[in-house]
Amino acid sequence: MPIEHALSELETVLGDRLSRSKSDLDAHGGSETYFPLAAPQAVAYPETTEEVSRIVKTCNAHGVPVIAYGAGTSLEGHTSAIRGGVTLDMSRMNKVLRVSQGDMDAAVQPGLTREALNEDLRATGLFFSVDPGANASLGGMAATRASGTTTVRYGTMRDNVLGLEVVMADGRIIRTGSRARKSSAGYDLTALFLGSEGTLGIITELTVKLHGQPEAVSAGICAFETMGDAVEAVTAVIQMGLPMARIEFLDAEAVRAVNQYSGTDVAETPHLFVEFHGTDTGVAEDAARFAEIVEDFGAKGIEVATKPEERSALWTMRHHAYWACLGLKKGVQGVVTDVCVPISSLAQAVEETAADIEASIIPGPILGHVGDGNFHAILLVDPRQPDELEAAKALAARMNERALALGGTVTGEHGIGMGKLAYMEAQHGDAWDVMSDIKRTLDPNGILNPGKMVKPGNR
Amino acid sequence: MPIEHALSELETVLGDRLSRSKSDLDAHGGSETYFPLAAPQAVAYPETTEEVSRIVKTCNAHGVPVIAYGAGTSLEGHTSAIRGGVTLDMSRMNKVLRVSQGDMDAAVQPGLTREALNEDLRATGLFFSVDPGANASLGGMAATRASGTTTVRYGTMRDNVLGLEVVMADGRIIRTGSRARKSSAGYDLTALFLGSEGTLGIITELTVKLHGQPEAVSAGICAFETMGDAVEAVTAVIQMGLPMARIEFLDAEAVRAVNQYSGTDVAETPHLFVEFHGTDTGVAEDAARFAEIVEDFGAKGIEVATKPEERSALWTMRHHAYWACLGLKKGVQGVVTDVCVPISSLAQAVEETAADIEASIIPGPILGHVGDGNFHAILLVDPRQPDELEAAKALAARMNERALALGGTVTGEHGIGMGKLAYMEAQHGDAWDVMSDIKRTLDPNGILNPGKMVKPGNR
Repeated sequence: MPIEHALSELETVLGDRLSRSKSDLDAHGGSETYFPLAAPQAVAYPETTEEVSRIVKTCNAHGVPVIAYGAGTSLEGHTSAIRGGVTLDMSRMNKVLRVSQGDMDAAVQPGLTREALNEDLRATGLFFSVDPGANASLGGMAATRASGTTTVRYGTMRDNVLGLEVVMADGRIIRTGSRARKSSAGYDLTALFLGSEGTLGIITELTVKLHGQPEAVSAGICAFETMGDAVEAVTAVIQMGLPMARIEFLDAEAVRAVNQYSGTDVAETPHLFVEFHGTDTGVAEDAARFAEIVEDFGAKGIEVATKPEERSALWTMRHHAYWACLGLKKGVQGVVTDVCVPISSLAQAVEETAADIEASIIPGPILGHVGDGNFHAILLVDPRQPDELEAAKALAARMNERALALGGTVTGEHGIGMGKLAYMEAQHGDAWDVMSDIKRTLDPNGILNPGKMVKPGNR
Repeated sequence: MPIEHALSELETVLGDRLSRSKSDLDAHGGSETYFPLAAPQAVAYPETTEEVSRIVKTCNAHGVPVIAYGAGTSLEGHTSAIRGGVTLDMSRMNKVLRVSQGDMDAAVQPGLTREALNEDLRATGLFFSVDPGANASLGGMAATRASGTTTVRYGTMRDNVLGLEVVMADGRIIRTGSRARKSSAGYDLTALFLGSEGTLGIITELTVKLHGQPEAVSAGICAFETMGDAVEAVTAVIQMGLPMARIEFLDAEAVRAVNQYSGTDVAETPHLFVEFHGTDTGVAEDAARFAEIVEDFGAKGIEVATKPEERSALWTMRHHAYWACLGLKKGVQGVVTDVCVPISSLAQAVEETAADIEASIIPGPILGHVGDGNFHAILLVDPRQPDELEAAKALAARMNERALALGGTVTGEHGIGMGKLAYMEAQHGDAWDVMSDIKRTLDPNGILNPGKMVKPGNR
């Protein structure tokens, strides 16, 4: 068995940092959502780039799959070891290597989580902006081109990664990008690896942009009578050019979930959560203009949180929404959708989705980063009821098809993984062939997260 | 001759839109800078994507080079037909296909220039932000990942292109990206084609982001005693997080050139040109804080231009700087450098460059988009004096090596073309091989702008 040869070679290098314990394999082959367990044959815990290179080289020689694993917060089954192999758990490569206050950038290892980075930055007056909610690893966030609540202002991982160190399928170590803020020097390999989900190379270091902590922050929530009013209010605010740092939507059911989970007593109607960053006068002006616009859409009960602890409570509430939704019904799993559409189609997309869910047999609270046109329905299914999973998949399919028809995407931020592979053809057409060609060139033996991202048959 | 077969096939398709007149060939094989004439054997003027596909397919079948040509404003010899072939002049594909005010995006053809697009947008309250100075075509700007004066606020082409239509080397037509503001759906082919300089495919359509015209704009200039003071002032302003829409540096000699060219009487010392976009109170606050900070670095003579015609005069002055510099000495050509470094190293990079130029036999005014860490020395050489071109190349080499040593890039915005190919290895190391592998996969016959971007021998 090639895998046995590979593992015995790896054991020589890694010693007890190559784990074959069942609990470890299962923990790395599972998923936060509905994907079935698909465990690797071993879990490696590399500590250096050179070790990663060595592991990949060995696996490449033996044709053994290598699956990079960050914090395991993927919602689309990215790390499922569907063809077995070795999972590279990057959690020991979790150091902040450099912080440059003057240049507002940092070099970090991929296993570092975004919260750990921000903790480390606390004294510097800087922060790392990309905020997917979960305390994901930065390598995983890069590999899925993640984004989140602050993207409307500070961008996605695509906008916040200046360069990468990557181990290629043959073990070569390359560096992409530079520390300059922009560059026209050749193909944008950084962007190519961002979102490649471990199928083109293993990210072993990232240079990320940091942002200055805003002088003043103002956050608030407001309630709407209908979902349509809330979403149209967002569209109007965006079109007025108001510089929001965050603008989040929760439907009535998501608010109810959050109330139950966090013990809050927010009115159970559609809500927007908003935040402004700037100077004292700037955020006051922004908040006042925001209130003026959303009142035209019937916004009520505008509450402003200016104290850090109030704001923190507000965003914690939002960040726990996924778990809160799962708490709405006992024993359920979530099928999480992630469409993103042009902002002018957002109201239509959200309302038609809500109507579909209303007509289905399962609940599905809706929430999202509406400033980007991105929203999620958390479709709640009882895994013992096959018709519920079927209903969820049908709802998700309709959302995805609608998003594509509106010029959008089936995934705004969660990535392809197992869950969206079936939509690659519909979304990309012949461009999917080009992706598959690139994959074949950079990973000729098909060892990097095989079975994901590219055409079946294309490894 | 394969080329004759190809051309006679193309003539059937294009009729008199396939030109073989010497003046046309020479006009397309020349350069705005010091690169020697390298003319194609024919110039094709396609009018549709399907025609581009047909041309490329024919050339691919016969192994004939295809060089995409926009407005011919490249400073690095991108469009030199160094192996002959067919130049695709995209100037007839210059339509605005769609403008969506609600989504703040537009679909355009690649031959449209940025000024023509902004003219078209005038009544909408929106504008296209990327501003390289020259009235470049949008296809060319995409192909070189261009940027310019407003990049410090609105980003480069990388940040302002949502999607592309591309004709591949085999004639396939693909679409990349989507109209959503963000997407995690697969490899970022949009980013891969941006900056690929016509070597991976021919861009036949772009979906670009638009921005709302700011409610208020305030621009100004201020003078410094030394170059170091000016650059350090910029670094300080950036680090304070002041949201500048533009921040440009001109050294004393560049100011002198601009005065001569535009008939202005700006004091001939190092200057910053700055602009703020926002609300009335916002830009007033920003301008006041800017003044406060730069005064600490000895800024004098702060002049504010709030009227549109004054601002327009100011930026026209800046945009003509390249031609103004060429006017400093009769009969000279420009060797234009384009380094970009982390902002904390900017003062060092600029000052060491100035000292090098001072010690050389040629003049070289310095100016740049200092908010991005990007600056240019316009090295002025008499083409009849070989030692002057040698001196310019030696100065450029030192600038490039210094930029790389400081973690920067040899080209912030002009691209590789002919002028920077020699630095690809130093800048990218083994990552250059990865680029070359991608090129070989997507253009196996090496017909797309051959001799550029990738390793010699790799076509």
